[in-house]
Amino acid sequence: MAQEKREKAIDLSHHLSELSKARQTSPLKGLAKFFGQPGLISLAGGMPSEAYFPFANIGGDALIPDSFAVKTAGQESSLSWFWKLFGKTKERTNPIVIPKFPSKPDEINLATALQYGTSTGLPQLQKFIDEFIEKVYQPGYSDCASLIQTGNTDGWSRAMQTLCNPGELILTEDWTYPSALASCRPLGVDAVPIAMDKEGMRSDELRKVLAEWDEKARGAKRPHVMYTIPVGQNPSGATMGAERKKEIYDICVEYDIIIVEDDPYFFLQMSEYKPKSARDMQSAPAESDVQFLAKLAPTFVKFDYQGRVIRLDTFSKYIAPGSRLGFFTCSPMFSERLQRQGETSTQAPCGFGQSLIAQLLTTWKFNGYVRWLHGLATQYTDRRDFFIDCFAEEFHLQLTTGERGAWAGCTVYAASPKPRGDAMSEKYSVGTKMFSFVPPTSGMFLWIKMNFENHPSIKSDPEETLEMKLWTKIAEAGVLIAPGWYFAANEDIPDAGRGHFRISFSNAEYPDLKKAVQIFSKVTREFFEQQ
Amino acid sequence: MAQEKREKAIDLSHHLSELSKARQTSPLKGLAKFFGQPGLISLAGGMPSEAYFPFANIGGDALIPDSFAVKTAGQESSLSWFWKLFGKTKERTNPIVIPKFPSKPDEINLATALQYGTSTGLPQLQKFIDEFIEKVYQPGYSDCASLIQTGNTDGWSRAMQTLCNPGELILTEDWTYPSALASCRPLGVDAVPIAMDKEGMRSDELRKVLAEWDEKARGAKRPHVMYTIPVGQNPSGATMGAERKKEIYDICVEYDIIIVEDDPYFFLQMSEYKPKSARDMQSAPAESDVQFLAKLAPTFVKFDYQGRVIRLDTFSKYIAPGSRLGFFTCSPMFSERLQRQGETSTQAPCGFGQSLIAQLLTTWKFNGYVRWLHGLATQYTDRRDFFIDCFAEEFHLQLTTGERGAWAGCTVYAASPKPRGDAMSEKYSVGTKMFSFVPPTSGMFLWIKMNFENHPSIKSDPEETLEMKLWTKIAEAGVLIAPGWYFAANEDIPDAGRGHFRISFSNAEYPDLKKAVQIFSKVTREFFEQQ
Repeated sequence: MAQEKREKAIDLSHHLSELSKARQTSPLKGLAKFFGQPGLISLAGGMPSEAYFPFANIGGDALIPDSFAVKTAGQESSLSWFWKLFGKTKERTNPIVIPKFPSKPDEINLATALQYGTSTGLPQLQKFIDEFIEKVYQPGYSDCASLIQTGNTDGWSRAMQTLCNPGELILTEDWTYPSALASCRPLGVDAVPIAMDKEGMRSDELRKVLAEWDEKARGAKRPHVMYTIPVGQNPSGATMGAERKKEIYDICVEYDIIIVEDDPYFFLQMSEYKPKSARDMQSAPAESDVQFLAKLAPTFVKFDYQGRVIRLDTFSKYIAPGSRLGFFTCSPMFSERLQRQGETSTQAPCGFGQSLIAQLLTTWKFNGYVRWLHGLATQYTDRRDFFIDCFAEEFHLQLTTGERGAWAGCTVYAASPKPRGDAMSEKYSVGTKMFSFVPPTSGMFLWIKMNFENHPSIKSDPEETLEMKLWTKIAEAGVLIAPGWYFAANEDIPDAGRGHFRISFSNAEYPDLKKAVQIFSKVTREFFEQQ
Repeated sequence: MAQEKREKAIDLSHHLSELSKARQTSPLKGLAKFFGQPGLISLAGGMPSEAYFPFANIGGDALIPDSFAVKTAGQESSLSWFWKLFGKTKERTNPIVIPKFPSKPDEINLATALQYGTSTGLPQLQKFIDEFIEKVYQPGYSDCASLIQTGNTDGWSRAMQTLCNPGELILTEDWTYPSALASCRPLGVDAVPIAMDKEGMRSDELRKVLAEWDEKARGAKRPHVMYTIPVGQNPSGATMGAERKKEIYDICVEYDIIIVEDDPYFFLQMSEYKPKSARDMQSAPAESDVQFLAKLAPTFVKFDYQGRVIRLDTFSKYIAPGSRLGFFTCSPMFSERLQRQGETSTQAPCGFGQSLIAQLLTTWKFNGYVRWLHGLATQYTDRRDFFIDCFAEEFHLQLTTGERGAWAGCTVYAASPKPRGDAMSEKYSVGTKMFSFVPPTSGMFLWIKMNFENHPSIKSDPEETLEMKLWTKIAEAGVLIAPGWYFAANEDIPDAGRGHFRISFSNAEYPDLKKAVQIFSKVTREFFEQQ
């Protein structure tokens, strides 16, 4: 494990915002030396008696870690939904229980979970998280800290307020998660978008923007905070590899930038998509959980020898969005400030959720949780394969090499209509490219670019108008997808408002995914017929 | 029920802060017309499949609503801990279960609770809350709204950011909840403290501050937001009655002030404390739940005919602090802005907590929940009585009428040492007043004022030094209480730093409460002996 001692000489405290500095240290801090003193009677806090918590225990039937296969469906993916549909009711479970007053001191304790004072999380959960960070993320310095938060939207909101003064700018990808920007805008914090390629943010473009920064022309000093979604990039589905991360990290050292790594899809990394016919008849043997972990692109935390990365993890995609539970991985200095930020807003994450998740994870143990994540990654791989297979059934997909922009050098799938029986009535030529995409390599989304330059009314309708016209028609036909404009970091990025859609394959049942592609296909073909 | 139509002509939207205005409306708002369309396939959000949530169900053993008696212990309070101590293990419970996929559509659904999209709360919970508001708080206008939040610290933080621009001032009580002020400080929002009496904030003082506001001298325009804790006032334990609330509301109409009513202790209202000997041998018959509700001081919401009250409720004191669940009661305009604020920070409260609490409340039903609250209020009354009885055992408590300041006209209990066998060795006279208090009429706290003017070293030690010296000695002797300076709205209020302690009687077991008072007594007497 990479365990260089963090270069303590580097003081990053000048990155703390005025907002963060004004936050008081915990009122309990001065009292800390008295806590844990045996026999201490605390009449200091406004804490109800645990006897008044109206649950003697909570619990549930938890799925077993190997509920989902780790072998992809191969050519069978388009049939496997049938099995999955009926398999759903056959969940294999084990009961877990969290008593209010457990008999053993080390057990997870509902009385503690439901009381005040857990802004750093239940001890058992904290321990699990710390071990997980150490084993899986392998931080580049030894005193790396963790801190529980209530999901990555909260995590980013707290990190941004801790790092940014009102009116400052942040670096983002050209296309990004809209809520992250919506959190910033009230403080007048806007995005400086960096051009992307198939690995997400480009390092050469990042260096260019920073090297050529013109404070006067930009109206703000050079950004010192980056917000990035390096894996399952939202909306593009790109995955940033180790080399790119190292390049970006080094640039951030050079220009003194704090990296906030929002990584909710980290464990949903997939192998490259192969057309159905190219996938093995008997798909490759399942890889082991160790191989699964080893193949994951490392996180920024691994390259971080200075403590300039704040990583955001969430259980939203691996357990449930309603968990509202996640954690920061960062230096102790940032962790302390983020804790103060939480104490004056959300306080601790919900104790019902914390205790159920802590009990689940400590019952599954590290190996069980990794097995669960491996099964999920396989599920998403099957879903992606099935979803793109559906497009291949509806459209003629031509494999080309992207020539310019974000997809330069990528294998791009260009979709044109398949010849139909009534070809004579079709107003477009059979070869008309309607849209293109690069199959995602992680996450939940297919990001498609419409080829509206081939639309008959392109000369009279701007592309953003066509985007919303087509989007509305698809919604009216019964399929809701996300319009592309919504993910543009701002209106100045190349291709902003030029016809994109983000389509999620994460939630719908397989038959619905198939039906949705059929509807999308029909509406899109009709749309391209219009004059 | 008071149901005047809100005077729509009054536009309070100028109270929305610049921070709040910059928050985008929900991205889903534009798509709203498509939601609920039968058969719609949504591929728009980044939602995991519910099949991947690793719980087939959750649940627990819930206490029954009448777990606690509604008849106070009367003269038996000091003995009743013995029964309570052993009664604790005899919790009477009923099981509740929330299946991931329930068979009936109206049942609380774990799949829904754990998915994205519940920023307005689970429908069943929302319905319960709306009915509760209507029946219990009886809002003064008909389109009063509710919105779920993650506890009152979050609630206040969101309300403050929605209402205050950086650098503005807010009205508070002289003594108040420190975290509420800590939330404000990063935005440069400071408190304008208003003097208090036994009902909390004084209306005459409020009017005086507003009428005499000198923008130039104060360096800020007149405040337009009030933060108040009207019941179980923290730290003073005061309860604001209907008349005072009406007076303050009318002043707020006159000066166009938004009232944020932070009311976590509302249902912990108690009758006046009576010394043990004055309590009935056979205590009064238990009152009915209807009588219990009828006797509660009404909330500001009842007087609100303009929609200028934002009420904060939390389940922290009635279910558990770890619930991290509460709700706003306010006008639809404020509710909409507060929702946007939540969407870019905490999103929804935890789904595990929401579903367990919703299932609990809908199982108990309205009457059951009121019975539970009634039982809790009785428990706190017994705790208060027992706690003050302990002081009466240790000290000579003299009933006097307060002459000035916050306690003018109140029945004040002045504590002096009881004569001991070794009176000759005592360095203080038997009549030395050491501290005074007004027994709280709601909430969790006893607020005591030290009479350090009678301390032998008062001439060399300032009172704030004596406060922390005594506090430290008490902590070292094994009892943690809260030092008074921590609750002062700022250093300019009368009596700030002049020797106060807030002591909580809400959490400790009865024997520990008794032991704590004995330790407090011993240390305080020794402290007053020092030269």
